[in-house]
This record gives sequence, C-alpha cells and structure tokens, in this order.
Amino acid sequence: MSAVQALTAQPVLIGLDWGTTAMRAYLFDALGNVVDSRASSEGIMRLPQPGGFDAAFESACGAWLEASPGLPVIAAGMVGSAQGWREAPYVDVPADASALVAGIVDVTTARGVSVRIVPGVIERGDLPNVMRGEETQIVGALASDAIAANSRTLVGLPGTHAKWAVVRGERIESFHTFMTGELYAALREHTILGRTMLEPVEPDTQAFLRGVTVAKHAQRAGLLATIFSTRTLGLTGALSPEQQPDYLSGLLIGHELAGLAALLESRDAPLADEVPRLIGGAALCERYRLALAEFGCRRASVVEAAAENGLWRIATQAGFVPRSAAAPAS
Amino acid sequence: MSAVQALTAQPVLIGLDWGTTAMRAYLFDALGNVVDSRASSEGIMRLPQPGGFDAAFESACGAWLEASPGLPVIAAGMVGSAQGWREAPYVDVPADASALVAGIVDVTTARGVSVRIVPGVIERGDLPNVMRGEETQIVGALASDAIAANSRTLVGLPGTHAKWAVVRGERIESFHTFMTGELYAALREHTILGRTMLEPVEPDTQAFLRGVTVAKHAQRAGLLATIFSTRTLGLTGALSPEQQPDYLSGLLIGHELAGLAALLESRDAPLADEVPRLIGGAALCERYRLALAEFGCRRASVVEAAAENGLWRIATQAGFVPRSAAAPAS
Repeated sequence: MSAVQALTAQPVLIGLDWGTTAMRAYLFDALGNVVDSRASSEGIMRLPQPGGFDAAFESACGAWLEASPGLPVIAAGMVGSAQGWREAPYVDVPADASALVAGIVDVTTARGVSVRIVPGVIERGDLPNVMRGEETQIVGALASDAIAANSRTLVGLPGTHAKWAVVRGERIESFHTFMTGELYAALREHTILGRTMLEPVEPDTQAFLRGVTVAKHAQRAGLLATIFSTRTLGLTGALSPEQQPDYLSGLLIGHELAGLAALLESRDAPLADEVPRLIGGAALCERYRLALAEFGCRRASVVEAAAENGLWRIATQAGFVPRSAAAPAS
Repeated sequence: MSAVQALTAQPVLIGLDWGTTAMRAYLFDALGNVVDSRASSEGIMRLPQPGGFDAAFESACGAWLEASPGLPVIAAGMVGSAQGWREAPYVDVPADASALVAGIVDVTTARGVSVRIVPGVIERGDLPNVMRGEETQIVGALASDAIAANSRTLVGLPGTHAKWAVVRGERIESFHTFMTGELYAALREHTILGRTMLEPVEPDTQAFLRGVTVAKHAQRAGLLATIFSTRTLGLTGALSPEQQPDYLSGLLIGHELAGLAALLESRDAPLADEVPRLIGGAALCERYRLALAEFGCRRASVVEAAAENGLWRIATQAGFVPRSAAAPAS
C-alpha cells in the first residue's frame, strides 16, 4: 500500500452544504477528494419537525461517524442563519477565507460532535447585501486554480437569489443580489402570466434569447414595463404557450445582466471585458452563458464542485483537518 | 315640474364597468347623472358558474329593466375579452371615441336586451400593449373639460396592471403597461420578502418615499437588484416589519415612474414637465402623486368618475341614448 493509498483510505472530514430547501453532505479523504456523499431534502425550512437539526444531521452523517468516530464536521449555508441550528453572525466585506475562519461558530450535536458553522458575508450600505453558503462556494471556485494576489474575478451564482460577486485576489470585495429565480417562480405560479403558459417539451433557446434581447434594449423602461409582453405576444400570436416560459426566463435574466452591466460600468469594468466564473446547475449556467454572450461577454466558464472545494479549503485553513492529512508528503 | 326635473326623473341608460374581479353598474338620467348604482364581486373570472354572465347581469340590472323596459345597455372592460361574454376585437391606436364606437359588438341577454360592448385598444409592435376598460375611463377623463384639438395629455391608471397613456387631442396615441400591482401582491404573498412583513396600523409615508428614492437612483441596476433590500434593511434593523410593505410599494412605484420617465424622455417629453391625470382609488392615486413629486412632477391631478363619464360619452356618441335626452334643451 503506497503512502497516497493509505491516506485516501481514511476519511478525515465531513462537510455540509445546508441550505433552505436541501442539504448535501460530503465525506473527504486526506487529499480532499469526496469519497462519499448524501443528498437530503431536509433544508432548514423543510425539517420534519421544528428544530429537527440533530435528527437530520444523524440521518445524513450518523453512519460515517459510527465508522470513523471523532471526524471533524464543517457546515455552510442557511444552517448558520437566525433560523438555523446556531447563528453565525455575518462577516463584513472585504472577506477572505481567513475572515470566514475567524467567524466560525460551533454547535454540539446530541452525539457530542462539534459542528463548525461558516458565517455568511454582509455588505452594508443603502442597499445592504447578504449571502450564506455562496461565500464558501466562492472560496471553492477560487481554489480551483492559482489566483494572482490582486487580480479581479467576477463570480456569478445564478438561482433563487442570484449573486454576483467581485473578488479581488482571494477577498470578496462586493456583491449584489438579484431575486431572479424567486421572481420567475412567483410570476409564473401566481400572476396572469402563468395562465397562458404551457411547459415546453424541451427548452426553447430562441424564445429565451428573444426575451434577453428585449430586456437588454428596454432596461431603462424596466422590468415592470416589459414582463406584460409575455402575455401580449401570446395574444397577438407571436409567442406560443410553450414559448412563453422561456421568453419570460430570458426577459428576467436579461434584466439581471443589464443591471449587472450598469453596476459594473459605474466601476469602469465593462461586462463585455469580464471573464466570469459561474457556479450552479449545468442547465442554468448554460442559460447564463448564452445570455452573457448577448452582452458581448463570451468567456464565461462554469466551475464544478465549488461547495465541496470551499468546505475543504476553509476546514484545512481552520486546522480542522490533521496537518499530516491536509498536507500529504509529495 | 320643470323641464330639467322631467328629464332627470327618467332613466335613459345602463352602463356597466365589468372587469376581471368586479362589476359596477350605473343608471343614468338624461343629463348623464348617475341616479343609481350597484357594485358586485361578480367579475368575469369570479362568476359563480362558468358563463354565468346572464345571471350576473340580471342580478345587477334586472330591477332597473323591470321598471324601465327597453333601456339601452353599454358595457366596457374584460366582459369584451376572449374570456368574456362576447369578444369585442381590439381597436388599434390611435383610437378616439369614434373608433371605439365603430368597434362595439352586441350580445343579446336571456331577457332579450342588447348589451353593447366597447372594444379594448391595442398598440402593436415588439412589445404589444392592450387595455380593456381603461380606454373608456380615458374617454371619460377627457370629457371632464375641454381638450384642445392637438394638446397632449398624460393619463395614468395605477393598479394591478398600471397603464400610462399618451393622448393627443382626444385620441389615445400610445400606452404602456406596468405590472406593478400584481407584482407587489405576488412578492408580498409568495416570496421571502413577505415573511418578515407586518401590516402597519396606517401607511408609513416615510418608508414609502424611501423606496421611491432608492428606485429612482437605482433604475439602471433595475428592480431585480433592489427588491432584496426590503429583507436586508430588515435584517440590519433599518426597516421595521411594519415599514417593509410601504418600502416595497415605494420601490415598485418608483421603478414604474423611473421607467415611465425614461420612455417619455425618449420622446422628448420629460416627466417633470407633464401634468398627468390620474384615474383610480383615492389612496393609490395619492401615493402616485407623492411619488411623482419625487420625479419633479408636481401638477398631477385626480379625475373622478372616469368610468361613468366614459360610458355615458361613448353611449351618446353611438346614439344609444335618445337624442332628445342626450341633448336636453338648454
């Protein structure tokens, strides 16, 4: 058995990405590889009983801890919110991995295990912004290659509450929240726009890009003035019921990116010059890549396994992983 | 009995403002005064049984027709949509009262009465716009005073689907739809923003204006980038739960007016120079007057009884009211 094989045989860390609607648990070996994982629908707002954190934790990680008692555990996401297992107060921007490590709080489980919870990040001001979980993904996305000390990276995290963060070196410098995903769901399920829609057999890229283009050209008129066109283009026969969902999705993502472009422009950083890293599901990231190209931004790339890498990186930096494991002999 | 008293004793017209969620019925005398009215919750989407138009009509107007058989009936609103009693195809802009009269369609009730339905208006193009009911209110708003043949009037109709129309002389030239009211309800009832809100004892004007100001300054970043602040200003203690509803209302109305200002600017008609006429509920119109003032537009006025006046005016122009009644001897 080689030294590397010996190291990989032994799990050294459990990492939890524990959000509002779901939880993912990862078992890491000493090289930071994920050797086992669990997906659960027991997000903090979907626990079978209020405060059922311990039961959900046991259900996801109990077997791993039986096999390897004393494994360190790190968690990120809404589990550290005021509605979570224990609140980990926000860390202010600019925030790097060291600042996150300094803000970690502990909660002890019924089994007696200490779960270390990574704090979220806040940017104060007239329009405050907060994130929980995304800061760990961003740290993970930066870990995937060497980052020059002062280089600037734009990181996009599409989803329910899409985040766009400007990272300088390895510090999260500023970020914005666009409620794109949640607004899409609310418009589709709870307004007149959903009534004439039918689910397409497969996504209609042309309808999506049509929405992106309309939003790009009508940004100053704003989203309130454009979304009704989802219905009126249906009334005039220009959009079939099956095209309307993708058109509306394109409209919203187009407004998000036009807003992002305006925010970047006010910092003399044109969106077209950016090389964004996208973190999220493959299909959604591909939508964003297509939409970004309409704004002249053609070099976006998708980062894989950002949450796992971020949890690993913060845990090693915090010293939760035995030094002999975290820095194996080369 | 004077000549005027004799004329007013005799009803000459029934007018219906029949929308999606409600119906209002008016009984007019020969001078165009409303001498009786009924309000019903039987909007076309809330009829107790599908197609129950006849029953709803009888319930609102049956007694009037028993007392005055043969009264002419005119109706405006969603009752003329594809989901209505009978479809009255849209009339294209530019549209004045004559164009509306030319587009009227009839439906005969079980009682044998002919209900004349006023068509809606459409503006075609990349972002088509449609209205049903508002065209009649606009005609009514213009009727309230003499309009110079080519003067330009901006008419605002706040609500679920707010309309802003540019009227030249007496013709509706162009208009826009802002889904402000429906989006507010969807955000409040079906997203995370509503979860931290409490209903205030009375509206908080300061919180409302704060939202308007944020939207005005952040229009280019867009609504998707600002609405999350309703939650984060709560998290940071800058907005109480009771202030959040009015703040969000201000944000949305602010984005609407900033969008309107951009649309008007592209036609060289700055919003600050406009003297808008507002049609709608008193409290909502007052909100818009306050918000318009933040955009330098301080001369907005509220028009009363626009629907009634519009129904009367279109009916007389169509000849539904006996000439001797519609033009009483002076």
